[in-house]
Amino acid sequence: MSPARSLPTVAFIGTGVMGHSMAGHLLEAGYPLVVFNRTRERAAGLIARGARWASTAGEAASLADITITIVGYPTDVEAVYLESGGIIERAREGSVVIDMTTSTPTLAARIATAAASRGVLALDAPVSGGDVGAREARLTIMVGGDDAAYDRVLPLFQVLGKTVTHMGGPGLGQHTKMANQIAIAGTMLSVVEALAYAKATGLDAERVLGAISAGSAGSWSMSNYGPRILAGDMAAGFYVKHFIKDLRIAVAEAEAVGLELPGLDLARRLYERLADEGGQDLGTQALWQLYRM
Amino acid sequence: MSPARSLPTVAFIGTGVMGHSMAGHLLEAGYPLVVFNRTRERAAGLIARGARWASTAGEAASLADITITIVGYPTDVEAVYLESGGIIERAREGSVVIDMTTSTPTLAARIATAAASRGVLALDAPVSGGDVGAREARLTIMVGGDDAAYDRVLPLFQVLGKTVTHMGGPGLGQHTKMANQIAIAGTMLSVVEALAYAKATGLDAERVLGAISAGSAGSWSMSNYGPRILAGDMAAGFYVKHFIKDLRIAVAEAEAVGLELPGLDLARRLYERLADEGGQDLGTQALWQLYRM
Repeated sequence: MSPARSLPTVAFIGTGVMGHSMAGHLLEAGYPLVVFNRTRERAAGLIARGARWASTAGEAASLADITITIVGYPTDVEAVYLESGGIIERAREGSVVIDMTTSTPTLAARIATAAASRGVLALDAPVSGGDVGAREARLTIMVGGDDAAYDRVLPLFQVLGKTVTHMGGPGLGQHTKMANQIAIAGTMLSVVEALAYAKATGLDAERVLGAISAGSAGSWSMSNYGPRILAGDMAAGFYVKHFIKDLRIAVAEAEAVGLELPGLDLARRLYERLADEGGQDLGTQALWQLYRM
Repeated sequence: MSPARSLPTVAFIGTGVMGHSMAGHLLEAGYPLVVFNRTRERAAGLIARGARWASTAGEAASLADITITIVGYPTDVEAVYLESGGIIERAREGSVVIDMTTSTPTLAARIATAAASRGVLALDAPVSGGDVGAREARLTIMVGGDDAAYDRVLPLFQVLGKTVTHMGGPGLGQHTKMANQIAIAGTMLSVVEALAYAKATGLDAERVLGAISAGSAGSWSMSNYGPRILAGDMAAGFYVKHFIKDLRIAVAEAEAVGLELPGLDLARRLYERLADEGGQDLGTQALWQLYRM
């Protein structure tokens, strides 16, 4: 496809595993792209395909109609948006800035307020679907923030994802992602424990998966991670260390509204134990290692 | 369909919600049926459709080539099989007895040994899929026990279920059902906690289900129970009191092999709390009530 002259210029900040695939889809769809990443080499493939390099996140934003960020931790989000010379300071008036990092709802709301004070529209739009979802442009995108901004960037979201939902005001995209992570945490735990039980009681665990996956015990986690677990494949689709970050945000947000979630809390503690034992750079299915006999 | 003369006579013991539907499918498929149930009225519909009434479980078994039981608790299973005048004492030599109750693997093995001493073949074949699965003949059937017995009764299982798997020797059907229940328990807990979080943080919980159900947080429990929970429908497809029975068996069996399953243990404790608060006759989705704000 050749770039359509009418498409807005997009600044893409954070070209890690997820961001690199996502930015690539935007290039392919014809969006003029400016990229920035802490490690420039990770953006090299995109630059080779026509993306322009910017030397800071703020500079990238200053050149774009839409700025997308997908970085590591809330502290990174805070830095690229709110530091002096950052995105909020340098984004063009009337532009839209979109944080697709999984971060805190509170920070999303702060960024939206800061953006509004400069005539910039902000959305929080975390995703689920992992590296495969990013590569295949099949992400689930959960969006919080202003209606008009959402409508303006929806075509861009549709390049990246399969299910795009506007959840409401600032922070509600992040809250939805937290609900998503709470559901995944307990489901993964239950898959791991079911397989540990199967092995410990002398069952053929693969046959167990075959018998129960399609029924009422079934889940995406069981179908997708069950076979990887039994094959001993602990490689990261999604890192334990990033999942712990998410679970800690969810625990803190639940506490902030006075909600006790013992299942979430248990999953968080088990994942922290896994990280303590050296599993932080494995995939989330490595929870299995706590149950190894 | 008219009864085919060549089909074996089946004794069906336990015509509750599940058993009534299952026995009805066998009648429809042409199996001559003898029925017994503690409460005779619950078998009336089957008798009206041509099933013969027996006055005890043992008597029913004495008239049949294949005996199926699906009763309430392991104590009921023990009584109908092992008491004086029970199924093991009265079953025909060479016949097959099948317990489809969710019961203990240990009891399944005991029954298989007792049966073998009288020249009777025993299978444990618990099911999942609930009342709807029984009604629509779409059950998942997990079978433990002798190969030859399994082959003989497979056509009958195929009348009742969609996924039929022979898991291995005596008790392994029950162990597979336990793995199934372990997976369901944690998944249900995670669905309930995700929805509680969504409500508490001001999200539109139905929109959350729409946004996340089809992605990596998805599960059968989320798709099937999520909407019922949000509609306030706590009616039993599967009773809390029966689920607690299952979870206690799973906890005991895990302990017996020295396996710690903190997720299972947490789910069991929460369901016990729900029962203590009067929820024993609600459906398993009523776990939601512990999180009501």
